[in-house]
Amino acid sequence: MEQNIIYVPIALSVVGLLFMLVKRSWVQKQNPGSERMQFISKSIKEGALAFLNAEYRLLLIFSVIAAALLFLVSTMVESTSWMIVPAFLCGAIFSALAGNIGMRIATEANSRTAEAAKTSLPQALKVSFGGGTVMGLGVAGLAVLGLSLFFLFFLSQFMGTEGNFYDNMTIVLETLAGFSLGAESIALFARVGGGIYTKAADVGADLVGKVEAGIPEDDPRNPATIADNVGDNVGDVAGMGADLFGSYVATVLAAMVLGNYVIRDMSLANQFTDNFNNMGPILLPIVIAGVGILASIIGTFFVSIKNNEAKESQVQKALDTGNWVAIILTLIASYFLIKWMLPETMNMKFFGEGYKEISSMNVFWAACIGLAVGALISMVTAYYTSLGKKPVMDIVTNSSTGAATNIIAGLAVGMYSTFSSVLLFAAAIYGSYELAGFYGVALAASAMMATTAMQLAIDAFGPIADNAGGVAEMSDLEPHVRERTDILDSVGNTTAAVGKGFAIASAALTALALFAAYVTFTGIDGINIFKADVLAMLFVGGMIPVVFSAMAMKSVGKAAMEMVQEVRRQFREIPGIMEGTGTPEYAKCVDISTKAALKEMILPGLLTIITPIIIGLIFGAEPLGGYMAGVCVSGVMWAIFQNNAGGAWDNAKKSFEAGVMINGEMTYKGSDAHKAAVTGDTVGDPFKDTSGPSMNILIKLTCLVGLVIAPILGGHGSMAHSDTTTEEIISIDEDGNETRLTNKQADEMDAAGLTEVSKEVMVKMSVDGDVTTAEVTIETTKDGETTTETKTFKGTEDEVEAELKALRNM
Amino acid sequence: MEQNIIYVPIALSVVGLLFMLVKRSWVQKQNPGSERMQFISKSIKEGALAFLNAEYRLLLIFSVIAAALLFLVSTMVESTSWMIVPAFLCGAIFSALAGNIGMRIATEANSRTAEAAKTSLPQALKVSFGGGTVMGLGVAGLAVLGLSLFFLFFLSQFMGTEGNFYDNMTIVLETLAGFSLGAESIALFARVGGGIYTKAADVGADLVGKVEAGIPEDDPRNPATIADNVGDNVGDVAGMGADLFGSYVATVLAAMVLGNYVIRDMSLANQFTDNFNNMGPILLPIVIAGVGILASIIGTFFVSIKNNEAKESQVQKALDTGNWVAIILTLIASYFLIKWMLPETMNMKFFGEGYKEISSMNVFWAACIGLAVGALISMVTAYYTSLGKKPVMDIVTNSSTGAATNIIAGLAVGMYSTFSSVLLFAAAIYGSYELAGFYGVALAASAMMATTAMQLAIDAFGPIADNAGGVAEMSDLEPHVRERTDILDSVGNTTAAVGKGFAIASAALTALALFAAYVTFTGIDGINIFKADVLAMLFVGGMIPVVFSAMAMKSVGKAAMEMVQEVRRQFREIPGIMEGTGTPEYAKCVDISTKAALKEMILPGLLTIITPIIIGLIFGAEPLGGYMAGVCVSGVMWAIFQNNAGGAWDNAKKSFEAGVMINGEMTYKGSDAHKAAVTGDTVGDPFKDTSGPSMNILIKLTCLVGLVIAPILGGHGSMAHSDTTTEEIISIDEDGNETRLTNKQADEMDAAGLTEVSKEVMVKMSVDGDVTTAEVTIETTKDGETTTETKTFKGTEDEVEAELKALRNM
Repeated sequence: MEQNIIYVPIALSVVGLLFMLVKRSWVQKQNPGSERMQFISKSIKEGALAFLNAEYRLLLIFSVIAAALLFLVSTMVESTSWMIVPAFLCGAIFSALAGNIGMRIATEANSRTAEAAKTSLPQALKVSFGGGTVMGLGVAGLAVLGLSLFFLFFLSQFMGTEGNFYDNMTIVLETLAGFSLGAESIALFARVGGGIYTKAADVGADLVGKVEAGIPEDDPRNPATIADNVGDNVGDVAGMGADLFGSYVATVLAAMVLGNYVIRDMSLANQFTDNFNNMGPILLPIVIAGVGILASIIGTFFVSIKNNEAKESQVQKALDTGNWVAIILTLIASYFLIKWMLPETMNMKFFGEGYKEISSMNVFWAACIGLAVGALISMVTAYYTSLGKKPVMDIVTNSSTGAATNIIAGLAVGMYSTFSSVLLFAAAIYGSYELAGFYGVALAASAMMATTAMQLAIDAFGPIADNAGGVAEMSDLEPHVRERTDILDSVGNTTAAVGKGFAIASAALTALALFAAYVTFTGIDGINIFKADVLAMLFVGGMIPVVFSAMAMKSVGKAAMEMVQEVRRQFREIPGIMEGTGTPEYAKCVDISTKAALKEMILPGLLTIITPIIIGLIFGAEPLGGYMAGVCVSGVMWAIFQNNAGGAWDNAKKSFEAGVMINGEMTYKGSDAHKAAVTGDTVGDPFKDTSGPSMNILIKLTCLVGLVIAPILGGHGSMAHSDTTTEEIISIDEDGNETRLTNKQADEMDAAGLTEVSKEVMVKMSVDGDVTTAEVTIETTKDGETTTETKTFKGTEDEVEAELKALRNM
Repeated sequence: MEQNIIYVPIALSVVGLLFMLVKRSWVQKQNPGSERMQFISKSIKEGALAFLNAEYRLLLIFSVIAAALLFLVSTMVESTSWMIVPAFLCGAIFSALAGNIGMRIATEANSRTAEAAKTSLPQALKVSFGGGTVMGLGVAGLAVLGLSLFFLFFLSQFMGTEGNFYDNMTIVLETLAGFSLGAESIALFARVGGGIYTKAADVGADLVGKVEAGIPEDDPRNPATIADNVGDNVGDVAGMGADLFGSYVATVLAAMVLGNYVIRDMSLANQFTDNFNNMGPILLPIVIAGVGILASIIGTFFVSIKNNEAKESQVQKALDTGNWVAIILTLIASYFLIKWMLPETMNMKFFGEGYKEISSMNVFWAACIGLAVGALISMVTAYYTSLGKKPVMDIVTNSSTGAATNIIAGLAVGMYSTFSSVLLFAAAIYGSYELAGFYGVALAASAMMATTAMQLAIDAFGPIADNAGGVAEMSDLEPHVRERTDILDSVGNTTAAVGKGFAIASAALTALALFAAYVTFTGIDGINIFKADVLAMLFVGGMIPVVFSAMAMKSVGKAAMEMVQEVRRQFREIPGIMEGTGTPEYAKCVDISTKAALKEMILPGLLTIITPIIIGLIFGAEPLGGYMAGVCVSGVMWAIFQNNAGGAWDNAKKSFEAGVMINGEMTYKGSDAHKAAVTGDTVGDPFKDTSGPSMNILIKLTCLVGLVIAPILGGHGSMAHSDTTTEEIISIDEDGNETRLTNKQADEMDAAGLTEVSKEVMVKMSVDGDVTTAEVTIETTKDGETTTETKTFKGTEDEVEAELKALRNM
């Protein structure tokens, strides 16, 4: 069993995918409704597929170029195999596939949800959540399956040949990083493209339809309405699917890389062995991910309501129950897995502090911190964006004095919300690091992401319900149908906001884990911002998320303007359109969004990918590290700011639907204050659905690009590289007998006064072209006084080896 | 001469202050206009003085508490004298005085400018710019005078007694930092308080007056109109004066501190001597500042126009000419001062790279980089905020589809504008550091700030002209008077935006110089963000400017809402107010702004000052460094974003006054697009006048607080401290003869093959309670192979001294 544990996540992911197929055929068997409903649903599906296909064609070109560059890198660097190329391509394909599965089921589930809503709300929830479940399991199943299979394959390729365990495993993981890079690259384009698409259509449809023509949302007379509904699918479903697929893979990968360092650090003190082919710490994250799939499946059974008259709070409670069941099951499983798979105590190296002895339970507590902070950040997000809470009510009150004060209040809410989120996040870094180093940080992120299948099911059911409402409206179904889908949609808005809080927290922790992996890969001595070049790049990195957001916002603005002109033109030129006798040209609006999204996603995508490469090659490894940190810090702020401001504006607008009390007066839809709130919501749309959610991918992708090019940066920007970095700690007693000691043993001997003289020898080797350099540090402790001696040997590899051997025998 | 060079800046600052008095009496002698005009001018002056007095009362409490805390710190730390307390208090008083002088002359110059505009535009420019000059010279003169006198006094107190030059000078400068801290603290409150005041009044007056009642700006029937004009003075004049006073002092101080490190590094290689009492590098920045005052005075004579029919461009040209004359004169003087006051070559220590030999010309080039980058950033700012340029036209075009698209476009412009500004800024850090280390960075900032007197004259003339327009409007003067003041006002808007670009660039460079001084003061080994606590604090620091901005925005929103309610009430309740027969209760509006500003400035002010203290005490010196870096990176982004978005919105709105072409149609004031643009401008108001400009002070003050508490953080957060940190480099030849060599000499000997064996000994001492620790590093180079040996001695001071002596004789 223990030897073959890698087959466990494979089996669990297959179970997940099988359950997905069962669920999918169940959804497909539901009644798709009248012909009109099917027609609308089909139009949405076709529009969405047309966009995805056009997008994939464009991304194919990108992938081929990127693959060629990766191949080039792999020929230059020993620790990277050419197999990174197929890994990259498969990552890209899997990511696209995950988005595609989700999008297809979502467009099939919409009319079926509307039809189910005719009979009852519980049934409508069952269908829409069923659609979400298909998507969630598709994403999680493919991620775990892809990662495990490639890992298994690369193990067979690179392990067991010559060289030591750590170096070979580094090649395995560096190659596996290609899979993650492929997934994350596609995710970026899908997120940005989808985000631009959906908001261009939404803003365009609202500005002319709701504001100028005064017709309701999703009215079939509005030419942009199909584009709007297509947008929900390509943005909120396909984009989000690719995004979470990328996050999930990156998180697990980062934890695996750091697991390898744990093994290395322990091997240096003492040979590391365990029952899991000596790679328990590497396998742990992927096994947890597999178990998370199973827990999510069990959780889905708890999502149901009985009462047809249920309100938002009951639907929310059903979702929460399912979510917590999945989380708690995962946590319990993690406890036993950690106990089983990790050594009881581990020697971990803490930067600047040396080795510490860490109990495996610390890793469990780090995972708990991850979950707790994730949950708390979600609560903070919910507070800042929920109906009836103070921040949203503030915006509502400020709407009474016009759009300007509404906007100022909304911006302030978004900015304020960074306070608690960032403090919590900083506490998570600090706490999980203190417990178990960067491996702890990575496990905290992994724990957050373990129930991705469930998270995504909850996230994806929102857009399905939203679309179902659209189908109901456009098919003139009875009002109670729309009322029921509106309940689901409203819950979906909250879960979407909360999901974003969770996503940014996990993305940031993952980015930090990748950052840690980067520093160790490059073999640099930390990232010191007291160096001017590192500091300069910290500023440049800080600027990137801002400019990226600007690009996304501007793209939405541009595309929305085109959409507005087109809708105005159709209202003007097509006779009988407002009376419902003329048919709007829906396809033209779909076309505008598609073209704009494809065109506008290229520049921000390339900015993200190319900038770190340029900085790495010109300035070297440490400044690139500064750049990464800048992107992370600034990206986290702008993500929280934009997501929460957008969510708060949206719900401030929604508040008017039921009526709100402003300065003692009840105010409703159609009032001036409501119009001001609509303006705020429109500003918030690109914030929360285009630029805000892209920040996650931006920060992760930046760190992944750094990680992939890390091996060529060893020589500080030149083409030189440091391909072996080993450190050894041995202890030599007074008589010259050499013993390898764990820190604990050394401490015990110290305490017992047994070692009067001890020596620690650390060797750091790096290769620059033909020249090998070994830096040897010898720490001698005698009578409590420590002397450190450093020797540097340069020469050919053989010469240096000889010197080292001589030194050891000295 | 050379011995007494410190008297040169004193003399020059006195010249500046005398010229200020002459100019002031000239302005006061001008005709103040009709009784009505004098009444209005007096009301504005009284409102402004009432606010300032209330503000000072509040700040007195703050200053007393802060002074007590500083006294406490000074008793705990040897390198800080209790004299930091009077320095702090004088800094605070001088800062308040500088704001007060400016505010008084500005409120006197407004009616005189309006009266002068009756006869001619050139005369109006002369009066308003004369007012600005008084303010500029007052600020610069007081800054240089205060700094020089305190420096001279502290020299007499602390130098020449026991101890070495460097340690004593550290005490001098650490105590002098109190002056800067006082100035910057008051500046923060003045900036934030003034910013909230002015925008609450402005937004309130506009929302009800312009938008709801449809009466023009500055209409005497608007109850908030006096408050609005008072706001221009307390925000744009007094606030800005205190701000620039603080910047100026901080910049010069930072350069002096880094000059001290230059001297230390050189003393270690070789005894440092020069003709300036061995402190040329410390005195240089203050002498340059003094010369900058003279250059500014000369520059003011070039600011004049001849033609009564002049347009904006000619007025702008006159100001530009004066500005460039001042800059070029300063640059020429700097060239000779640098050649004269600095050694021809200097040995500077570069972090992580060791010693480098630097020509004094490098310092000059660093100053040139500072000026060039400052000018370029100003140009970038002008591009993003000027009438008729693409970014502003983008916003204009987007106004045609409503307020929402206008806001999206404006936000995007602000975000985009970070791109070139940050790249230029990063280049400035990189370039000036490469040329002359952090001393180069500090000199670059000093060069930017040297012509502060001129900068401020140009900045301050805008609000004076703006107020003159208000006086003209409220006194029913003939339209051509308002037209003339409008020309001046419009130029003032551009210079204000450009000045803000310059201010943030210089503030950021100053912050970096302070940051460098901080790292050296604390004796930590750089700021490594690969440590989890440092990284966590980097995130916390990044959050502070965002939350600070949120507080400022929300305060404006809250105060503006109160103002709106009050104005609405007066319109409703005072009979005949709209017909001009009833008199509005101006004082009530002034009161609302005053109370709101005072109440709301406290929290952001305390957040800025207390957070770094808490972090330093809990987490220690290195995490506090991470926090500082986070504040700087995030602060720079948010400053540029907010300032430029606000400026662009303002001018997009102004574009409609002359009419603009949108989609082939001429669009004017009063159109829907114009109304959308007014909304954008209202959102931009707190951006560009409250939160945006506060960022400068936030980042500088954060670094100053860090610098002042640096000595108590030496023991990494404990109360222990490291009060001596000396490093020595000596070179010992084969026969054991000890020689002190400069790097250059060592290199020459190396090249000639003269030193086969050389030793470098570095000693680092720190004191923690009674225990003195000496870390000794000995680098021996023999046959090209280097061996490093480190020894650590612990014990009482005498014991350690004995060990060191023994080692030296070994």
